Amino acid sequence: MSFAASVLTLYPEMFPGALGLSLAGRALEAGTWSLEAIQIRDFATDRHRTVDDTPAGGGAGMVMRADVLARAIDHVSPQGDERPRLLMSPRGKPLNQARVRELAAGPGAVILCGRFEGVDQRLIEARALEEVSIGDFILSGGEPAALVLLDAVVRLLPGVMGNAVSGEEESFENDRLEHPHYTRPQEFEGRQIPEVLTSGNHKKIAEWRRAEAEKLTRKRRPDLLATGHPLVK
Amino acid sequence: MSFAASVLTLYPEMFPGALGLSLAGRALEAGTWSLEAIQIRDFATDRHRTVDDTPAGGGAGMVMRADVLARAIDHVSPQGDERPRLLMSPRGKPLNQARVRELAAGPGAVILCGRFEGVDQRLIEARALEEVSIGDFILSGGEPAALVLLDAVVRLLPGVMGNAVSGEEESFENDRLEHPHYTRPQEFEGRQIPEVLTSGNHKKIAEWRRAEAEKLTRKRRPDLLATGHPLVK
Repeated sequence: MSFAASVLTLYPEMFPGALGLSLAGRALEAGTWSLEAIQIRDFATDRHRTVDDTPAGGGAGMVMRADVLARAIDHVSPQGDERPRLLMSPRGKPLNQARVRELAAGPGAVILCGRFEGVDQRLIEARALEEVSIGDFILSGGEPAALVLLDAVVRLLPGVMGNAVSGEEESFENDRLEHPHYTRPQEFEGRQIPEVLTSGNHKKIAEWRRAEAEKLTRKRRPDLLATGHPLVK
Repeated sequence: MSFAASVLTLYPEMFPGALGLSLAGRALEAGTWSLEAIQIRDFATDRHRTVDDTPAGGGAGMVMRADVLARAIDHVSPQGDERPRLLMSPRGKPLNQARVRELAAGPGAVILCGRFEGVDQRLIEARALEEVSIGDFILSGGEPAALVLLDAVVRLLPGVMGNAVSGEEESFENDRLEHPHYTRPQEFEGRQIPEVLTSGNHKKIAEWRRAEAEKLTRKRRPDLLATGHPLVK
């Protein structure tokens, strides 16, 4: 059973994009996951294939219509589809590695990419969309965010990365940023690899890495160390 | 003077990707910004074009070599280049709209996309790389993160979005998530547009929106309301 992603978008040609290459692309070819990009406009009912309208109450921008989006969602995700329905939106809950892991363990995801000023709130409620944010910045639309979410999920699917996965992830598991890395050459522009790393003393190496991770996290992301931070819950 | 982006990557074919379409794509064609994707392997010196090696001190994964990356960076960003040099990395400072805005006001960006376990720390220090994270999750590489960062920046470049920009951004400017949006039809599956929005009373509409934004932020992102939160500094 492979992970099935359905993306609802005004720009289906943005997919698979970067997901068609490298790890994710090979996994796509191998059938470890599947991806369909659905054109929302195909579910408009007027001649101009209109998907948006002016905001009730006035204001800048356009709002995506509930009725058109509902038809698109119901088409790709009929009753009985157990995949979560996500809406990429800066108003959403911040994505974190724990949620990525949950998604990767599930049957797939239906992902709605918002554009313009936003999506009619009634659609979000009527279709129980889970609003997901990838960060506190504004994108031109949900598509780049969807690419990021799927990239994060796909690399966790069985067989995609193999053993290489475990090491990296421990950083977020322990609420710590990762320690610095070094590799050959031994000297680079007069800078040496820290002696402890070439000592062969595995206990000391592990201690050094732990201390460096702790130091970096304190300096750069003290929020990760605070209990109950929303990003790492 | 247009915004010049240089991306260093093992997958130059991932660019422009989604950035070649829609708003960003039109701005690229119009010369509002430029994008070059540079293959890091071209700066390896051995027959196999090796860019990585095993981590000093042991452990899983591979580390990108400082010497190869330094040659690539120095090639695209010689002395005198005033563009910031970014390294997309989960260890970085979280990207926020304030930093996006700064970048959009500058001459461009040199963006190094990490892959594998990470990048030799000496390279980060010797080339004064600014480590930037788009969120607390792990990607297969820095490329999807670079696409996101550039999408956020490009939409702020002069002429790309016009007036439509201002409304959306106020949400993060005020440390608030955006209020809900509604548009026609007036009734959707028995759900009405909230009466206040069709009242024509602009003062009441503004008050309602403010209150809804406040309520949503309290519920979903209380961290945004706390003074000095690292994400919105």
